Amino acid sequence: MAKQAYEYFKIDPWKMIEEGFNHERNKVAESIFSIANEYMGVRGYMEEGVSTDTLLGSYFNGIYENGLKENETHYKGIVKRTHFMVNSVNWLYTKILINGIQLDVNKQEIRNFTRSLDFKTGEMKRSFILVLDKNREVKFTFRRFLSMRPPIYGYQRIEIEALKDSVDVEMEVGLDYSILHWGKYNFWDVLKHDGDSHSVKAIGKTKTTNQHVFSGYELKTNSKVKTEPFSSEKVIGHKMTFVLNNEKIQIDKLTTNIIDKNTESKNPNLWEDGIEHLSKQPIYQIAFEENQKYWEKVWHDYDIEIIGDEKNQQGIRFCIFQLQQTYNGVDPSNNIGAKGLTGEAYSGHAFWDTETYCLPFFIFNNPKASKNLLMFRYHTLDNARKRAKDLDCIGACYPIATLNGDEACDLWQHASLQFQPSTAVSYGIWHYVKNTLDKEFLYDYGIEMLIEISRFLLSRGDWNHNHTKFGFYGVMGPDEFQMMVNHNAYTNFMAKKTFDYTLEVMDELKRIDSKKYIKLSDELNIKQNELKAMNEASKAMYIPYDKENLLYEQHEGYFDLPHIDVDKIPVEDFPLYSHWSYDRIYRNDMIKQPDVLMFMFLYNQSFSKEEKKANYDYYEPRCIHESSLSPSIHSVFAAELGKMDEAVKFFGFATRMDIDDYNRNTCEGLHTTSIAASWINIVYGFGGFRSDGDSLVLNPVIPPMWKQYSFKFKYLGNLITVVVNKKQVEITCHGQGVELMIYGKKYQIKSNLKVSKDVAS
Amino acid sequence: MAKQAYEYFKIDPWKMIEEGFNHERNKVAESIFSIANEYMGVRGYMEEGVSTDTLLGSYFNGIYENGLKENETHYKGIVKRTHFMVNSVNWLYTKILINGIQLDVNKQEIRNFTRSLDFKTGEMKRSFILVLDKNREVKFTFRRFLSMRPPIYGYQRIEIEALKDSVDVEMEVGLDYSILHWGKYNFWDVLKHDGDSHSVKAIGKTKTTNQHVFSGYELKTNSKVKTEPFSSEKVIGHKMTFVLNNEKIQIDKLTTNIIDKNTESKNPNLWEDGIEHLSKQPIYQIAFEENQKYWEKVWHDYDIEIIGDEKNQQGIRFCIFQLQQTYNGVDPSNNIGAKGLTGEAYSGHAFWDTETYCLPFFIFNNPKASKNLLMFRYHTLDNARKRAKDLDCIGACYPIATLNGDEACDLWQHASLQFQPSTAVSYGIWHYVKNTLDKEFLYDYGIEMLIEISRFLLSRGDWNHNHTKFGFYGVMGPDEFQMMVNHNAYTNFMAKKTFDYTLEVMDELKRIDSKKYIKLSDELNIKQNELKAMNEASKAMYIPYDKENLLYEQHEGYFDLPHIDVDKIPVEDFPLYSHWSYDRIYRNDMIKQPDVLMFMFLYNQSFSKEEKKANYDYYEPRCIHESSLSPSIHSVFAAELGKMDEAVKFFGFATRMDIDDYNRNTCEGLHTTSIAASWINIVYGFGGFRSDGDSLVLNPVIPPMWKQYSFKFKYLGNLITVVVNKKQVEITCHGQGVELMIYGKKYQIKSNLKVSKDVAS
Repeated sequence: MAKQAYEYFKIDPWKMIEEGFNHERNKVAESIFSIANEYMGVRGYMEEGVSTDTLLGSYFNGIYENGLKENETHYKGIVKRTHFMVNSVNWLYTKILINGIQLDVNKQEIRNFTRSLDFKTGEMKRSFILVLDKNREVKFTFRRFLSMRPPIYGYQRIEIEALKDSVDVEMEVGLDYSILHWGKYNFWDVLKHDGDSHSVKAIGKTKTTNQHVFSGYELKTNSKVKTEPFSSEKVIGHKMTFVLNNEKIQIDKLTTNIIDKNTESKNPNLWEDGIEHLSKQPIYQIAFEENQKYWEKVWHDYDIEIIGDEKNQQGIRFCIFQLQQTYNGVDPSNNIGAKGLTGEAYSGHAFWDTETYCLPFFIFNNPKASKNLLMFRYHTLDNARKRAKDLDCIGACYPIATLNGDEACDLWQHASLQFQPSTAVSYGIWHYVKNTLDKEFLYDYGIEMLIEISRFLLSRGDWNHNHTKFGFYGVMGPDEFQMMVNHNAYTNFMAKKTFDYTLEVMDELKRIDSKKYIKLSDELNIKQNELKAMNEASKAMYIPYDKENLLYEQHEGYFDLPHIDVDKIPVEDFPLYSHWSYDRIYRNDMIKQPDVLMFMFLYNQSFSKEEKKANYDYYEPRCIHESSLSPSIHSVFAAELGKMDEAVKFFGFATRMDIDDYNRNTCEGLHTTSIAASWINIVYGFGGFRSDGDSLVLNPVIPPMWKQYSFKFKYLGNLITVVVNKKQVEITCHGQGVELMIYGKKYQIKSNLKVSKDVAS
Repeated sequence: MAKQAYEYFKIDPWKMIEEGFNHERNKVAESIFSIANEYMGVRGYMEEGVSTDTLLGSYFNGIYENGLKENETHYKGIVKRTHFMVNSVNWLYTKILINGIQLDVNKQEIRNFTRSLDFKTGEMKRSFILVLDKNREVKFTFRRFLSMRPPIYGYQRIEIEALKDSVDVEMEVGLDYSILHWGKYNFWDVLKHDGDSHSVKAIGKTKTTNQHVFSGYELKTNSKVKTEPFSSEKVIGHKMTFVLNNEKIQIDKLTTNIIDKNTESKNPNLWEDGIEHLSKQPIYQIAFEENQKYWEKVWHDYDIEIIGDEKNQQGIRFCIFQLQQTYNGVDPSNNIGAKGLTGEAYSGHAFWDTETYCLPFFIFNNPKASKNLLMFRYHTLDNARKRAKDLDCIGACYPIATLNGDEACDLWQHASLQFQPSTAVSYGIWHYVKNTLDKEFLYDYGIEMLIEISRFLLSRGDWNHNHTKFGFYGVMGPDEFQMMVNHNAYTNFMAKKTFDYTLEVMDELKRIDSKKYIKLSDELNIKQNELKAMNEASKAMYIPYDKENLLYEQHEGYFDLPHIDVDKIPVEDFPLYSHWSYDRIYRNDMIKQPDVLMFMFLYNQSFSKEEKKANYDYYEPRCIHESSLSPSIHSVFAAELGKMDEAVKFFGFATRMDIDDYNRNTCEGLHTTSIAASWINIVYGFGGFRSDGDSLVLNPVIPPMWKQYSFKFKYLGNLITVVVNKKQVEITCHGQGVELMIYGKKYQIKSNLKVSKDVAS
C-alpha cells in the first residue's frame, strides 16, 4: 500500500513551477496551477488549446446542473436526481494562428516552456518560444489571475513577441459558452449578447437549473491590433489580425463575471449590473497590485514556515494558498467542495469534511470565513428539514453531499445511514463559538440549527428493546466499511454531545435572555418534553466500551467480527471498491478511516492518554486509510503519543499529496479538504494544538528532519506566532494577550514567551 | 391490516365463472382465466380486443429478454443487466367487424356475457350475445385450450351465430408478433413467414437474446367462409368475409408453437419441425378429449375435497389446477415463476419459493416433476458457479431471481446477501431423496450440487474474531426486513444442514460406490481438507439460542432491537416499501415473514413442541406477513400447537387470495407460489403431514366449519387418500403399502385404515 511520489514540479518556497512541457502531466499541471477566489475558479489549462488530454474547467461556486436522469427507485428517502457543479463559460477563450498554423505546444517545436503560479500574487504565468524555423521564433507569455476583492474580476494577458523575422498573427479571443461537462455535454444557452470593437458581453443560462451567468470583457491592446467582434451560437468574441515585426504585442482582457445563483426569481438587472461593473473594472496592473497586498496579508497572518524541509515548505504553502483560493469568506451561500473549484470529480459537492477538517483552519485564521461556513448550513436549514421529512423523521438532517443544500448522494446506503454531516454541523457551531465567543451567532442562528439537528437525532435514534439504551440502529459511521450497524460509537457519541450542547445553550439563553428564549421556543414550537426526551436520550446513550482494555467498540459486535490482516491484502486489490465484490468489504474488522479515533480527535481532551494509546494501538492496524483524510488524524495521535516515527510516516505525503500526485488522480482536481487536513497535521499534530478544552493548548514537538518551524493563529483578536525548534518554543502575541496552556502549564502571554522544550515530558 | 375479499366470481366446485362483463375487473379476470401447460401460457384476455384495461399476455417458459439498460454501478458482484420473461407471439390474434363495426364488448350492447374455465378440461370458454338492434342479434362463443401433452399445441374455436336477421362479417385471425411488453416495447423480429389459404407459419426472434419461436396454424372452417392470407410487418394471418344468415359458423384455429430457447446455436430445422408438427396436429375434439383424460388423472391423483366449505373447495381446486398448469414436469429446463405464466410482474423469475414452497406439492403428487425442478438447478450449476466467482467466492451460489440460471436481481442488498436459494436447493435435494429414495439422482447430480453449494457457503461464511464461532456476516435471511445482519439463525442453520448432508452423502457414496466416489472427487477436485473444513464449520456453526426461554434469536442482536407494535402501524402505511423511508424498515424488531419459524417448519421434527410454541408465540406478533407466503407457515404451526382459531385465521384467504383479489393485484398475474403454499396449508397444516423425519407423519385436525375433507399423496409408488371428518381419519392406500405415523403411532397400511380422532391428544 505504499504510495509513491511522482516528482515533477520544481521545488520553490513560494511558487509552483513546471519546466518543460510533458503532455502526460498536462492534466495534473492544470489542477496544480488552478486559480480561484471562492467566487470562481479556472484550471491551469492552456487557453489557446492543446492536442493532448486537457480539461478546460471553469467553475463558479454555486452554479450547478441536475443529473441527466432520474434514479428509477420507487423507495422513499432515496435521492431521485443528483446535482453537480457545472463547467461554465470559458472566459479565457483564445485561438492563435501563426502564419496560418494553429498554435499547439504539443505539435509544434517549442523551447523554454515554463508554467508557474506565484503564491505571493496569485498570478499564473506560462511562457515559451515557438520555433517556426531558424529565422522565425515567437515568444508567448500568458498570464492570468483572479481578483480576490472584489471576486467578480478575472484578468488575462497575452504577450506575443517576434524574436526574429516577422510573422502573421490571426487570433480569436472571447467568451465560450459551448464548454463541455465531463467532456460530453453542454449545459448552456446564451440568452443575450452584445459587442463592439473592444468589448463583448453575454448572459448564459443553465439548461435545467435556470441559473444565469453574465460574462463580459474589455480588450486593451496596442493600436496596431485590429479587433473585430464576431459571434457564433455560443461563442462571442473578437477576431484580430496583425503582422508582428520584431516587437511585442500585449493584449489584456479584463473580464467581469457575475452569477445569479437563484434558480427561480431572477435578477432583472443582471445585464445592466454586469455592464456597470465592467465599466469600473481596474486595469491589470492596478488589480495585480491589489492582489499582491491581499496575499501579503494572508501570508503575514497564516504562513507556516519550515526550515530544513524544502519540499514540505513548498507543500504546506501550496495547501494554504489553495485553501484560501477555494474559500475565504466571500459569500455565506458558498461552501467547500471536496475538490474545490479545480475539477469535476466529486461533482463540486461539499461533505462533512467542511466542519470537520476545514473549519479549524478558518476559525484560527479567518474567523469571518468560518462563520460564513456555518451560515451556509443556516441558509440551507430548510433543505435539511425537508431531507429529515424524506427520511420519515423530524428536525433537520444535513446532506452527505451537496451544493445547494439538498442531498445529492443517490446511494441510500450513504445518504440514509450516515449522520456525521448533521453532528458535524453541531460540532462546528460548538467549536466556532468556543473559540470566538460569538454568542450573537449562537443565539441568532446556531441554536436553531442545534434544536433541529437534535430533533432529527432524537427521531432517528431509538431505544433498545427494554428501554435501557438509546442509540442509532442501521447506520454507517465515518468508517464506510461497516454498513447498517447498531450503536456506532461515533454516531452515538456525537449525538450525545449534540444533545448536551443544545440543552446547555437553551439553558444559557433562558438565563441570559429570557425574551429571546421565549421567542425562539415559540417560533420553533419547542416543547419542554422534547428537551426532556433529549436529556433522557443523552443520559442513556450507549457508547460501547471495554473498561478492562480502555477500548471503545466501533459498534456493537465489532470486536467479534472476523479479522483481516490488512497488510496481507495484495496491493493489486486496491482500491477495494474496484476490485472486491461489493458486499465483501462490509463483513470483517477492516476499517477505511478513523471512526473511534475520529471522535477522540474531535474531543481530544475528554480522553486520557491511556485511552488514546489503547484505541490508537487497536484501530490503527485495522485501518487501510482508503480515505485521503485518514493519515493526518493518525499522525496527530502518533505525535501526541510520542510515536514520532509513526507521526512522520503518516504525515508523509500530507502536504504534497497533489503536487507529487500520490493518489495518481490529481489530474481530476485537487484534494481540497485533504489540504485542510495537512494544516491540521502540522498545527494539531506537531504543534500539539488543542482547541476543545477550556484553554488553548500547545504541546509542540518537532520532526527530526526539521530545524525549525513556525505557525500562526488568531484567537480572540490576537495574532499568535509559534516558533518551534529543537530546543525551545517561542510564542509571540500581537493583541490584548491570551491564556495558553503550554506543556501542561498555563501562561498569560502579552507579547512574547519562550519555553524551553526540556519542560515537555 | 385486515385484507378484504372482492367477491366477484361465481362459486362452483369445478369451475371459475364470471357472469356479466365488468370492465373494471377485466384484468383480474384475465389472470384468473389464464391457461397454461408449463410450456406456454396465455392470459384469459379477449382475443378480439376490448376498449378497456387489458394485458394481452402470451408467454413461453424460458423465452426472455434482457433489461433495457445496464445498471450504472461500477461495483463488483452487482448485476449489471437483468432479464425477464418476454411477452411473445399472440397466436390468438383476432379482429371481428359486424356490419362494418368492430366488435367490442365494452362499447356495444351485449347480454348473457359469461367467461368460464373448467378444471376438468382446461378449456376456457367465453360467450355473449351482441345486440345490434331489435332485428339483429349475434351470438359469439370463444373457446381455447392448450394441449397438456404434447404441450406445443394450442386450440382456439370461434363460433358466430346470427340469431335473427343476417349480418355481414369481416374477420382477421392470425399470429401477432407486434405484441407489446409492459404495454410499451416490442421485442420481436419476424425472420420468416409463409402462408396459403388455410394456414400460415412464422418464425419470430427476440431482439437481444436471439431466441426463436415458431408459430403456425391450420384453419378449419365451414366452406362458406372465404379465407385469404395477409401479412404486415409483424402480423401474419387470414382475412375472412361472409354473410351470416340465420346460422352458425365455426372457425377452429389449430396452432403449433415451438420454441428454441438456445441463445446461441440455433436449431436449423425449426421451420421444418414446426411444419411437420403442425401437419400432425389433432383436431379440436380429439385434443379436447385427450385433455379431459389428462385432467381426470390429475384429479384422481391430486384432488382435495372439502365438504362444508364451497369457497375453499373452489379455491383449493383452482390452486391445484393453476399449479399443475404452470408446472407438471414437461421439461427440466423450466422452472416456476412467482407469477407462473400469467403476467409480467416479477418478470417471470423463479425464486427460492420453488424448492421451499412448490417442491413438496410435486414430490408427493408428481415425483417426476419434482426431479425436473431439481434438474433445473443442475443444468444451471455453471451459472451458479459463475455467480459465486462474481461474489469473490468459490463453489456455486444460486440466484435470488432467475429465468435462465443467471442472477437477475440487480439490487445488491438482496442478490449479494441472501443465500436461501442455495440452501433451498440443498434442502430440496435432501427432501426429494428422502421421500423418493432416488439415489441415482443423488449420486449422479445431487451430490455435485451439494459439494458446490457447500464450497460456496464455506467461502462466504467466516470465523469470528477468536475462531470459536462459524457463521455468516453481512447477510439478509428470508425475513427481508433485517438487512446486513450477522449470524442470521436461518442462514447459519441451513448452512449447517447443508454441510452435514453433503458430508453424509459423501460418506455414503464412499461406502456404497467407491469408484464413483473417486471419480467424483477427481472431477470436482475435492480435497480432504475441504471436507474437514466443512465439518469444522458445521460443528462450530453458531445458532443464536436463548436456552432459558427456548428461543432462537433471529440474528445476533435481534432480541435487543427497538420494538415496534406492528398492530399500531396505520393501515395506510402498507405496503411499507411504498410508504416508509427505505432505511426505516430495517431498524426494529418487525419482521416481514417467517425466518426462525421457517427453518423450524422445514425441519419441523427436529424441534420440540415447547420450542415451537415459544418461538411461534414470540415471532408471530412481530410479523406483518408482507410476503404472501407468510400466513400459511404460521397456520401450519398454529394447527400443530392446537391454536385452531389462529390456524383458521391464517388459512383465511390462502386458497382464494387471487380469486377474491385480497392483495388487489391479481390483475398483474396469479401468485403461483402462494398457491403452492395453500396446498401446504391444508396438507401440512390441517392434515398434520410431516415429511422431514424417518416416517411420514399424519396428525389431522379439522377446522370447525368443515364437515369433512380429503387429500391424497404419492409415496414410494403408493397413492394414499386421507379422509378426515370430525370423528375419524380414514386412510386408503393403493400400492404395495406404506408405513405411516398417525397421531404418534406407527401403522403399516396395506389398503385401508380407520383411526378414531379420539386417539389424538
